[in-house]
Amino acid sequence: MKTCRPVPFTDVEITGGFWQKQQKRNAEVTIYAVMNRFMETGRFAAFRCDWREGQPNKPHIFWDSDIAKWMEAVAYLLEKQEMPDLEKVVEETIDEIEKHQDETGYVNSYFTTVEPSMRWSNRRWHELYCAGHLMEAAIAWNHATGRDRFLKIMCRYADYIYRVFVEEDSAAFVTPGHEEIELALVKLYQATGNEKYLQLSKFFVDKRGNNEKDNLGMPEAWDRVSSQSHLPAREQVTAEGHSVRAGYFYSAMADIARECDDKELLSACEKLFDNIAERRMYITGGVGSTRYNEAYTVDYDLPNETAYTETCASIALAYFARRMLLLHADAKYADVIERILYNGFLSSTSLDGKRFYYSNPTEYNIGRRDIHPASSETAWLPAVERVEVFSCSCCPPNITRFVASVGDYCFTEDESTVFVQQYMDCKALISGAMVNITTDYPVSGIISIRTTGLNGRKIALRIPAWCREFELSVPYSLQNGYAYVAGKDAADMVLTLSMQPQLMEANPSIIDDAGKVALQRGPVIYCLEGVDNGGALHNLVIHADTDFTETDNSEFGVPCISAKGIRRMAAEGNWLYRPYAGEKEETVLRFIPFFAMENRGKTDMRVWVPVVD
Amino acid sequence: MKTCRPVPFTDVEITGGFWQKQQKRNAEVTIYAVMNRFMETGRFAAFRCDWREGQPNKPHIFWDSDIAKWMEAVAYLLEKQEMPDLEKVVEETIDEIEKHQDETGYVNSYFTTVEPSMRWSNRRWHELYCAGHLMEAAIAWNHATGRDRFLKIMCRYADYIYRVFVEEDSAAFVTPGHEEIELALVKLYQATGNEKYLQLSKFFVDKRGNNEKDNLGMPEAWDRVSSQSHLPAREQVTAEGHSVRAGYFYSAMADIARECDDKELLSACEKLFDNIAERRMYITGGVGSTRYNEAYTVDYDLPNETAYTETCASIALAYFARRMLLLHADAKYADVIERILYNGFLSSTSLDGKRFYYSNPTEYNIGRRDIHPASSETAWLPAVERVEVFSCSCCPPNITRFVASVGDYCFTEDESTVFVQQYMDCKALISGAMVNITTDYPVSGIISIRTTGLNGRKIALRIPAWCREFELSVPYSLQNGYAYVAGKDAADMVLTLSMQPQLMEANPSIIDDAGKVALQRGPVIYCLEGVDNGGALHNLVIHADTDFTETDNSEFGVPCISAKGIRRMAAEGNWLYRPYAGEKEETVLRFIPFFAMENRGKTDMRVWVPVVD
Repeated sequence: MKTCRPVPFTDVEITGGFWQKQQKRNAEVTIYAVMNRFMETGRFAAFRCDWREGQPNKPHIFWDSDIAKWMEAVAYLLEKQEMPDLEKVVEETIDEIEKHQDETGYVNSYFTTVEPSMRWSNRRWHELYCAGHLMEAAIAWNHATGRDRFLKIMCRYADYIYRVFVEEDSAAFVTPGHEEIELALVKLYQATGNEKYLQLSKFFVDKRGNNEKDNLGMPEAWDRVSSQSHLPAREQVTAEGHSVRAGYFYSAMADIARECDDKELLSACEKLFDNIAERRMYITGGVGSTRYNEAYTVDYDLPNETAYTETCASIALAYFARRMLLLHADAKYADVIERILYNGFLSSTSLDGKRFYYSNPTEYNIGRRDIHPASSETAWLPAVERVEVFSCSCCPPNITRFVASVGDYCFTEDESTVFVQQYMDCKALISGAMVNITTDYPVSGIISIRTTGLNGRKIALRIPAWCREFELSVPYSLQNGYAYVAGKDAADMVLTLSMQPQLMEANPSIIDDAGKVALQRGPVIYCLEGVDNGGALHNLVIHADTDFTETDNSEFGVPCISAKGIRRMAAEGNWLYRPYAGEKEETVLRFIPFFAMENRGKTDMRVWVPVVD
Repeated sequence: MKTCRPVPFTDVEITGGFWQKQQKRNAEVTIYAVMNRFMETGRFAAFRCDWREGQPNKPHIFWDSDIAKWMEAVAYLLEKQEMPDLEKVVEETIDEIEKHQDETGYVNSYFTTVEPSMRWSNRRWHELYCAGHLMEAAIAWNHATGRDRFLKIMCRYADYIYRVFVEEDSAAFVTPGHEEIELALVKLYQATGNEKYLQLSKFFVDKRGNNEKDNLGMPEAWDRVSSQSHLPAREQVTAEGHSVRAGYFYSAMADIARECDDKELLSACEKLFDNIAERRMYITGGVGSTRYNEAYTVDYDLPNETAYTETCASIALAYFARRMLLLHADAKYADVIERILYNGFLSSTSLDGKRFYYSNPTEYNIGRRDIHPASSETAWLPAVERVEVFSCSCCPPNITRFVASVGDYCFTEDESTVFVQQYMDCKALISGAMVNITTDYPVSGIISIRTTGLNGRKIALRIPAWCREFELSVPYSLQNGYAYVAGKDAADMVLTLSMQPQLMEANPSIIDDAGKVALQRGPVIYCLEGVDNGGALHNLVIHADTDFTETDNSEFGVPCISAKGIRRMAAEGNWLYRPYAGEKEETVLRFIPFFAMENRGKTDMRVWVPVVD
């Protein structure tokens, strides 16, 4: 099939604007914050494989993946700058990995140290997941440093995995309970040219939901759904189960579809993506409606207060969308990436860059939190305050590697066209063409683009689906969400997207958003916070025909917005129910960007606000 | 303190109308339905104390209480009619109880059969709870039949409990984890005149939250809250913990306050009742906002879809309110009883009288139920369909004993006044006065009352708080929610309560009801069902100024009601979010009584409907 090529972030330099600030914070604060917490909690030490029963910081089955993602992030940072202190930590970690890789090629700090007899015995454990993340780290490290020690370690391990799973079928399961290695193996194939790794990835994709042995390892139906093992990949049409696993798996399906020209897999990917984007995604780009199995549920089930919307699930969905964008030059995939970038992903990190969310829900009601005296397990609601580290700390290192490589999302290309998918202030070298973008997007919608060396190719500028009005200073034709400009016209042009705030409604099938609207300005979703609006947010209503007043963007990087609304009046007296009086008064609603929520102490928050015509 | 006296249902004959139909169904269907399920599940057989490991129907720690409540119900039915088949079953059960009561006086089928070594060892287990229910059954049986065998058995048991807990302090705990015996012991005192039982009740009330030993048995804070053991009774001001336990305990507190003239306990009861009635009660009279510990949570936390609102909790709250009514001639207590009677209690039973709810939530969204592939434990939402029996089947026998004795709630009296608390078609002999009430209430609000023999006393007619207009055919003066009529004027009078449907609003502090109204007609709360309203109930809005059209009352015993509303239009296309269009159309909303919900197949239901002015 005809596909696009990715333009990796290594060919893209973020030169200013919104994302340069994010990358600066990531390189100066976040990468260290994550490292320090991982040091303190013993995650680095685990690779020394000297933990013994009774000691603190017992290694966990997924710790290798935490460190791997952090190492991958360091590799990405090193692509752009010298960071010798971090480089040293990574090399020392590779020293330990090398030292404890056993003769088979096996690498895993948990199973080597804590439960050596349990290797390959439990599908639920994260053995292959950790392997996949270490492979990704090794590939990135090789690219950033030119040194191949780590990559060779991981190739040896991949060879061993091939033997165990493909040649010997000697593990207790056929495919991993938590996907990730599938997409890592495609990367390993792309980095080494060794087709065996592509075959192994395809093996895992093909066998999932397609063999009896895995059912023995996960006998419960919900467990099979949770790991996308309820059906063969090609028969899956709705996003099901654990939303992070799902995103990684669908990404690998798209990879295999592209690498192997597999139209059945492509068709499944198209259906799965549409099911998510048209039925199962929060307006913030968050996915996973329930904490139970951290899972997708059913179409249009998108509760706000209990939204799971794990940061890693949004990242995984962005991975999937990026791969779909290579398979189809359709802006709808980039639209989802943009939704994630500016909302459900960005919300994961505190403004100071040190604290993180696992869940990114679209509503907080402080007054009734922590009301259940039972254990936190049964009393679950998403945490209000971002924290420095969590016991299941998959998100923080995922966040730092994602920001470091965010340039990955700016462009794609094929023989005839360079596609601008995300508008960041940057310059990029794309198969000989130079593209220069100057913009403070999403502060304003003014995007200046200069190109040289297009060499007869067109340039296609994504017109976001949210954008109701735009101007482009050169001739263009619209197709699949892009304004196509002939190369000869593209030397110097200005795209202006209207950033007029707008009220968005949800599909009427979504129970929890019925009668409500969300405020959006450009790609940024807004929210009300109690601290700005006098509390009792549930009694605020917005006028459908409100004007909007934008404040400056000094506090959160994009403007805050005021609108006209109504406050239902709190009545006097100790009554609980009474004949409807409907007392209310006019008020001003003060919105801030959703991504900036909960940075000024614990406060009520909501994205969806009742609307009155 | 000056208090009122109860008028027991044995002095009240329900002679027609709404509640006669309920009692007929109870006597002809429900009592047998419960018995049959209890036979099938081995609950009766458990009293034979011959279960052995490996056999089916292993006895459970609370089974004795299930049977006890059913026996109590039979006793109440026998007060009014011959039912030799049921009488025989009860006598045979008493045979077994007598046979297996041990030399100490101990009676408990579970501990005698399954874990004899664990007697009095675990505060969480329901040992004293079962004892209390058996005492209530024995008292009722003695009153109905004049036979004292069962009562003597239970007095022996009560004597033994007194010895173990008061004299020896030899149990592993001081007070029961699940209250109930406290109110049963007051009844036992009232039935026998033996003050020891009152002392034992007072001992349990006084010691709760007031001793260290109980903390050893329930070391977790939530466990202590769940059993109202977090504070001494007299210091409790908010309803906390398991809502059934709470209701039974507060009832006993009120009993002790009255019997012992204990003003501190009375003051605590007043605060607890007001906290419930003004902050923590659903509009249906349901209580217990969360399944976690089946508990009260915090003020104004009343979610609809996940409401726990156990049937037994409403019954227990009615018990508490009835006792408060004896302590204060204030209609607010009877108002809560009425709210429970016609709504959250009545909803518990299917129209055919055979199937029951444990939870009585105020909203069902069928489309997103059973969405979690995990175990039912983690996937909990209240059951949509009433079922014949549940494993924890406390509610069905509680329902049947409650309906059989519903006449308990009609009247109270003191030296100067006979109070009519609930309007049922009935005749009653009240300390020499005869009161005859003829009414089809709540079909209409017309209540004809004839009295003879008041002998100088006044009669006080409760004017429900929901009633905005009423007429009384004789002179009266209003006080504390009652219209007081001089005895000389009360020979023949007609009270007419306006039954005009009205829209009720909730206190603005209740997040889940914000911007919504509930339809109420007389004491009956209404709901929308999908089956009558074309589904997608979340897209229906009611006009604040709607007229109401009442249909006949043939289907559910009270009229159905139509009102004017708006349907937000379901839009075409596979979009998830879009600029607000706000498409809508005028429609007619069809309401049915809440108590009749879910009798015509699984369907969406909601009590609270968004309102537009």
